[in-house]
Amino acid sequence: MTAVAGVAMANEPISPIAPVKEINLAQVELGKKLYFDPRLSKSGFISCNSCHNLSMGGTDNLKTSIGHNWQQGPINAPTVLNSSMNLAQFWDGRAADLKEQAGGPIANPGEMASTHTLAIDVIKSIPQYVVEFKQVFGDSEINIDRVTEAIAEFEKTLITPNSRFDQWLLGDKDAITATELEGYQLFKTSGCVACHNGPAVGGSSFQKMGVVEPYKATSPAEGLAAVTGKDADRFMFKVPTLRNVEMTYPYFHDGEAETLTEAVDIMGRLQLGKKFTDEENAKIVAFLKTLTGDQPSFLMPILPPSTDSTPRPQPFD
Amino acid sequence: MTAVAGVAMANEPISPIAPVKEINLAQVELGKKLYFDPRLSKSGFISCNSCHNLSMGGTDNLKTSIGHNWQQGPINAPTVLNSSMNLAQFWDGRAADLKEQAGGPIANPGEMASTHTLAIDVIKSIPQYVVEFKQVFGDSEINIDRVTEAIAEFEKTLITPNSRFDQWLLGDKDAITATELEGYQLFKTSGCVACHNGPAVGGSSFQKMGVVEPYKATSPAEGLAAVTGKDADRFMFKVPTLRNVEMTYPYFHDGEAETLTEAVDIMGRLQLGKKFTDEENAKIVAFLKTLTGDQPSFLMPILPPSTDSTPRPQPFD
Repeated sequence: MTAVAGVAMANEPISPIAPVKEINLAQVELGKKLYFDPRLSKSGFISCNSCHNLSMGGTDNLKTSIGHNWQQGPINAPTVLNSSMNLAQFWDGRAADLKEQAGGPIANPGEMASTHTLAIDVIKSIPQYVVEFKQVFGDSEINIDRVTEAIAEFEKTLITPNSRFDQWLLGDKDAITATELEGYQLFKTSGCVACHNGPAVGGSSFQKMGVVEPYKATSPAEGLAAVTGKDADRFMFKVPTLRNVEMTYPYFHDGEAETLTEAVDIMGRLQLGKKFTDEENAKIVAFLKTLTGDQPSFLMPILPPSTDSTPRPQPFD
Repeated sequence: MTAVAGVAMANEPISPIAPVKEINLAQVELGKKLYFDPRLSKSGFISCNSCHNLSMGGTDNLKTSIGHNWQQGPINAPTVLNSSMNLAQFWDGRAADLKEQAGGPIANPGEMASTHTLAIDVIKSIPQYVVEFKQVFGDSEINIDRVTEAIAEFEKTLITPNSRFDQWLLGDKDAITATELEGYQLFKTSGCVACHNGPAVGGSSFQKMGVVEPYKATSPAEGLAAVTGKDADRFMFKVPTLRNVEMTYPYFHDGEAETLTEAVDIMGRLQLGKKFTDEENAKIVAFLKTLTGDQPSFLMPILPPSTDSTPRPQPFD
């Protein structure tokens, strides 16, 4: 069976999610607390988990996110699940890796609306955090570099192995149904795998939204052009992972596609010049739902309390 | 030792937290999901856990809470921890029990801003919830009564036994320091225990805020008078539990006291006509910090995904 599985994997454009290796467990535990700590926001109300909710596929399941003072965000929150496999972070790839990404929302006035200085002041005022940073990093220095490093280390553990599709890739031919397998064949023969491939079924390239037909966007998001300044990069977005896509609705960078059916239809027409029949669409959707893996399982973290000297949240200023 | 502990407990106005008995575990698991599910709010962003955050002592640690559309709430969110021991729910006691309480915020336009009808429609559209309700309640009926019953059952598990003070009550005389014990003696001899007693160290009566000196409130909250309509009940609030009080800052129904030191000072002067010295205050605060118990420990729940027919959140309408 192992040999068969090996052959099957080698021939498929999608590969199973590999186990996490070389992880710093002490950093993971610290990073988990920080990920759930709303004191990293100005209001004391918004944490990383608010928009990348680990109960909900690592997203907020909103078209665009809610930020400080209920500001409407400009873009759909991408899932944090399996995000360590992305070639870059954010839809426009403006952060090279998870560590660089983690610093962004904390100081973004439209998201957590704090500053790195204030966030560090908060953490430094909490003795249990001070001790934990020393345990994890070996000395008492606390800075944004270490905060984001710990959060990123936690995020590296947020992978979702063991989906039915991965079981199939690994040799269990009964793990998916005949319809789901037909959906996968369509997914391959129609060209979806050209971009949605690898262990994350995406995340490995930037592609133009609207190749065959233009994408009629209401969102002002420009994609990679906002980073490079090149007009040619307009509407170039990071291809999202399709892992757990059943849970990460709504879809696209602007969240305009509410259902998988709608997303598959639009992708087929705009990217591939192909109008899927209802039956084909349903088969592809059935396949996509086999990509839901084991969700991260961990004890809800308990956060160390603030002290008399901790800067207070300012939700209404 | 058992005999000694028995004697000690019988003589003390505070009793240890007793284990939970007669709990419906299937309801607890369903209630846990509902407690964490922001789809019970209109925005899809606010869950029970948003303001009664189980990572943070069952509170939001804000002066007053943030509701739908970032509305500023009128009152400090009381902790959900050990709330099953309260004689009634809400600061003004307007709900008789946890089940009645749970329905309030869902439909409160300033909090979760949904309606019971909409919340039930959302749940009914999610097949995994439908199956779980049937498993738990024996038939396929889903209504607000069952939703709040399940949430309340989960909340009954949110007790915090094994605090150092409870260990002391149970006979371990080394569980608290000499200073903490002196603080407890002061807490008793000064009269604090008249209201803060029993297993929850509070929660068992309504008392007037400002007995000896009037409380100068900026908050419009009226307390029990808002429920009874009686002028005599103005500023009568439910005495809060002091369990985990180190974690449930800021203090009072209006959240105006930022630190325990400040809260102890104001309570002494206004309720007891007693100005504690700095040393006395510090001892009482030291005692209060021995009331932090084992926090609820459970796996972060994974929520069943919405379907194509699930009513979508409306955060910006």
